[in-house]
Amino acid sequence: MIYLDHAASSPLLPEVAELLSRSLKEDFANPSSAHRLCRDLSHRLEDARRVLLDLLCGLELYQFVFTSSASESNNTLIQGIDWKEGDEILISRTDHPSVVVPAESLMAKGVQLVTEVGPKTRAVFLTLVNSQSGAIVGPEKIKEFKKNHPKVLLFVDGVQAMGKFPWMRTLLKDGVIDGLSISAHKMGGPKGVAGFYLKNGVQLRPLLVGGGQENSLRASTVAVPLVFGFQRAAELRDRRLAEIEKVSALNLSLRESLKEIPAIRFPFGPPPETSPFILSFVLPPVSSDIVLRHLEEKGIILSSTSACSSRIKGKNPVLLALGIPESEHKWVLRVSLSQETTEAEIKTFAQELKAVHAKLSRLLGGN
Amino acid sequence: MIYLDHAASSPLLPEVAELLSRSLKEDFANPSSAHRLCRDLSHRLEDARRVLLDLLCGLELYQFVFTSSASESNNTLIQGIDWKEGDEILISRTDHPSVVVPAESLMAKGVQLVTEVGPKTRAVFLTLVNSQSGAIVGPEKIKEFKKNHPKVLLFVDGVQAMGKFPWMRTLLKDGVIDGLSISAHKMGGPKGVAGFYLKNGVQLRPLLVGGGQENSLRASTVAVPLVFGFQRAAELRDRRLAEIEKVSALNLSLRESLKEIPAIRFPFGPPPETSPFILSFVLPPVSSDIVLRHLEEKGIILSSTSACSSRIKGKNPVLLALGIPESEHKWVLRVSLSQETTEAEIKTFAQELKAVHAKLSRLLGGN
Repeated sequence: MIYLDHAASSPLLPEVAELLSRSLKEDFANPSSAHRLCRDLSHRLEDARRVLLDLLCGLELYQFVFTSSASESNNTLIQGIDWKEGDEILISRTDHPSVVVPAESLMAKGVQLVTEVGPKTRAVFLTLVNSQSGAIVGPEKIKEFKKNHPKVLLFVDGVQAMGKFPWMRTLLKDGVIDGLSISAHKMGGPKGVAGFYLKNGVQLRPLLVGGGQENSLRASTVAVPLVFGFQRAAELRDRRLAEIEKVSALNLSLRESLKEIPAIRFPFGPPPETSPFILSFVLPPVSSDIVLRHLEEKGIILSSTSACSSRIKGKNPVLLALGIPESEHKWVLRVSLSQETTEAEIKTFAQELKAVHAKLSRLLGGN
Repeated sequence: MIYLDHAASSPLLPEVAELLSRSLKEDFANPSSAHRLCRDLSHRLEDARRVLLDLLCGLELYQFVFTSSASESNNTLIQGIDWKEGDEILISRTDHPSVVVPAESLMAKGVQLVTEVGPKTRAVFLTLVNSQSGAIVGPEKIKEFKKNHPKVLLFVDGVQAMGKFPWMRTLLKDGVIDGLSISAHKMGGPKGVAGFYLKNGVQLRPLLVGGGQENSLRASTVAVPLVFGFQRAAELRDRRLAEIEKVSALNLSLRESLKEIPAIRFPFGPPPETSPFILSFVLPPVSSDIVLRHLEEKGIILSSTSACSSRIKGKNPVLLALGIPESEHKWVLRVSLSQETTEAEIKTFAQELKAVHAKLSRLLGGN
């Protein structure tokens, strides 16, 4: 199988799979209990937290809160502010639904969604790497934003960037970002665990209240084996950040190869302008569903739009916001790579896509 | 090791551990994507949902929503109601913090916490089995409550009952309960997955919004391997519900044996009045911390209070609400059993507790 849907979810790294198998069996106690097993788990949980902070140079200025998903992290950051009527939040319609929908839900409290910062703007949400276009909002832009708007809370979705971009290593060192969400399963860790970095001093109301876990920011028994898997995946990815060069070369060579299809259109620029891990394109005249199905028969898995948008019926608001006209939505395909993707896989994929596209176009055109 | 803290968290059942090791590696795709791997995962996810509904005879009248923890389930049920100022919620101070604290947080919206149902009571939260006392609110009491108060939303915490009591099998067949929360890791499944049954037609606002998963009641990539582990644990426990007889016998014989300690006091009645899986007692004059530490040295793990209450500093509100005077809180110990607990383990525990208690009492008394 050639799996090219890593932006939706990536397979467990083998070392993480091994660690999880062991930890799920051994680390069964509740870290909130008072006995020895729990004290041990509790210490290792704090170690994992420190490792995640340390990876982004956030050890001094930030805390890290474990959650169950990036959606939960984004919801907590957005819903957790003590919003007042008339406040404004700036988001982009190209953000993930777990940013856009919670922001929209604030309108019931009299909060306005805006596209430019004004005197009433309380918070802005930026996405480091867009999961559909690969568009990057890098550390310079983020720093500039905070310089221009020092009083606006700056929340950042880092899901498609964590463990991939060398600049992540120092992202939190200046304390410019107020909250940053990341997810384990987009970087070779397990589903069911994620988290967010929160700048010390930022007041946030928890979504889940009760047992006082996670510094009272998220009540729930911590799923410790998943946390250990998350930590390991993050460490392993961090050691291999230089592999972005290899992935960039794969992305560029795939673009070149696909340009041989006359009908293809690349709405977004090449790396380093966009993330090398993501390559979306518009390929008329065959519906993406049918292309996907034919490639599946060859053992090749890719995607049309992002997983969380695939349930949205009718027009796709993210694609629209990215400037792709509605008439072209049915032709959008997304390839997403990981550090494990090989040149051979990319070559086979390009060949098969060309063959499938030629065959289906002929059938459709009646030639 | 003799592990007697199952009410806090139970080890994975071996078959569940095996299933998880395999599923974590194989089922890595995102069930919300559009391709073949995801369609397969999506079907198996719906199968798991049906199994969980079927186990409690809830297939016709209920939906099941996967969450990350029972705390999340309880928070969603309580916070998800469209509360109006002046509404009332009935809870018990003996409930889990993930019930009590969200209910208290409603007071900011003008909702009153009450101890008796009145004309303004919108919802009541009952706990099937109390995690500290083992006190049972069985199906008859629940049915009677709903008969007397048909218009009050009836939410139930089933965390310490699911997979343990034969009457669970038909708990939802009459549609008397509006929402019921359960957790995987209290019954041999993994931490990080839980869920709630919601009666069809009950309106609930989701806590997590975004991608539309879980029938728009909980946005997040579903942690499918954990769900499969949860399903398996629930099925395995269901097949062995008759083992409650064995656990009852163990509980009763442990009580008999511990009565040989003159200082011991059992504040709660024996099974079947209380859950046979839980046995709390007050054992002066040595602080429970010290007793726990000495038993740990013998490889015996138990607890003082429930895991989620162990972080609460000062007096323990659950113990107080259960009628244990504050002066005795420091002497409370809780043993919690599973279907896997053996007679030999219980015997060894009783012997060691008696020996440790005698030795420490002598030291303390200076005899």
